[in-house]
Amino acid sequence: MNPLTTRRMETKLDQLQQRIDFIKAIDALKEVQRKTCLFSESRYENSAEHSWAVATFALTLADYAPSGTEINRVIHMLLLHDIVEVDAGDTLCYDEEGSKDKAQREQAAADRLFGMLPTKTAQHFRTLWDEFEAEETAEAKFANALDRMIPVLHNLDTGGKAWIENSVTFDQVIAKNQKIGRSSPALWNYLLPRIQRAHQDGWLL
Amino acid sequence: MNPLTTRRMETKLDQLQQRIDFIKAIDALKEVQRKTCLFSESRYENSAEHSWAVATFALTLADYAPSGTEINRVIHMLLLHDIVEVDAGDTLCYDEEGSKDKAQREQAAADRLFGMLPTKTAQHFRTLWDEFEAEETAEAKFANALDRMIPVLHNLDTGGKAWIENSVTFDQVIAKNQKIGRSSPALWNYLLPRIQRAHQDGWLL
Ligand SMILES: [Ca+2]
Repeated sequence: MNPLTTRRMETKLDQLQQRIDFIKAIDALKEVQRKTCLFSESRYENSAEHSWAVATFALTLADYAPSGTEINRVIHMLLLHDIVEVDAGDTLCYDEEGSKDKAQREQAAADRLFGMLPTKTAQHFRTLWDEFEAEETAEAKFANALDRMIPVLHNLDTGGKAWIENSVTFDQVIAKNQKIGRSSPALWNYLLPRIQRAHQDGWLL
Repeated sequence: MNPLTTRRMETKLDQLQQRIDFIKAIDALKEVQRKTCLFSESRYENSAEHSWAVATFALTLADYAPSGTEINRVIHMLLLHDIVEVDAGDTLCYDEEGSKDKAQREQAAADRLFGMLPTKTAQHFRTLWDEFEAEETAEAKFANALDRMIPVLHNLDTGGKAWIENSVTFDQVIAKNQKIGRSSPALWNYLLPRIQRAHQDGWLL
């Protein structure tokens, strides 16, 4: 075998090893605990199983995305959206203090983790993650809407467990989640009366 | 509002409720324990977080699929492939006894769980799951290859923890996993020498 062929094969093998090392590194997302419980309330959920649930939610609710939305880009974003938490941890969206340096911590995490991959894939994944974070495209807006909707459903189902534990108020829930309606009016029309009822019933203050 | 419009809106709301009920039902996949550990070995993994890992693995290894493979259908299959375990539990692929009635238990689970969805989505998801199980299309073969590859990587990384705990032999590992190479020779060329070394080093008998 001539040296060039050998080098090419090594590079291809190196690139596979880089991808496998990335998968091993992000396995740690299974150990990042969120503030939200399982629907069974048996324990808190982790960010890896949450990522599966919300990506599957996107596949299940594809018809509720604005027309023209590329649902596969939504799914790709949701598979990758929490990976930075391997380094940066999960920050509750209502946590003003923790949210201050969140962007900086997550940027550093994205640099390190996506940087483990071969250049083209690293750029592809980083672009998807940046798009999700910027919330400007139809795909990013819908992905963020679903990511917000899941914890609201958990709270509505568990008598506001995470809301109560974290002293989250009705006004905060509305302020943080009403943008769901700008991506998908049907989803917000489903959630809003349920959030209002929780407030009227007194377990969301 | 005329009665027809009202009926249409109710139907649309019912369909959304069906989708949300499905998401709540499959949340139980987070409580199905697999025989494989996290890479950190801190605990066994569950089928929900495994589904996230293998779907993300597909996105990361898209270049290793045979040309013409629709990677998004692979990802859809992998998001849905284990959902039946909510009712049927996880069966180790080396478990001959448990594998006997596995197909029957999983068919019943697929009927119940996908049957929670509006008809069109139920049929779509069931078709994807049937395709994954049949392992005939390029997409199903690649999805199955990745689903097999992840536990092999776990075992290679943990000194064969799950293989030893379940008395799995070298011959069984080769027999069950060599079809990875029929979907993606590059992936099998990566795994095979590592499995052989584990055998030579004596921790895979
Ligand atoms: Ca998050």
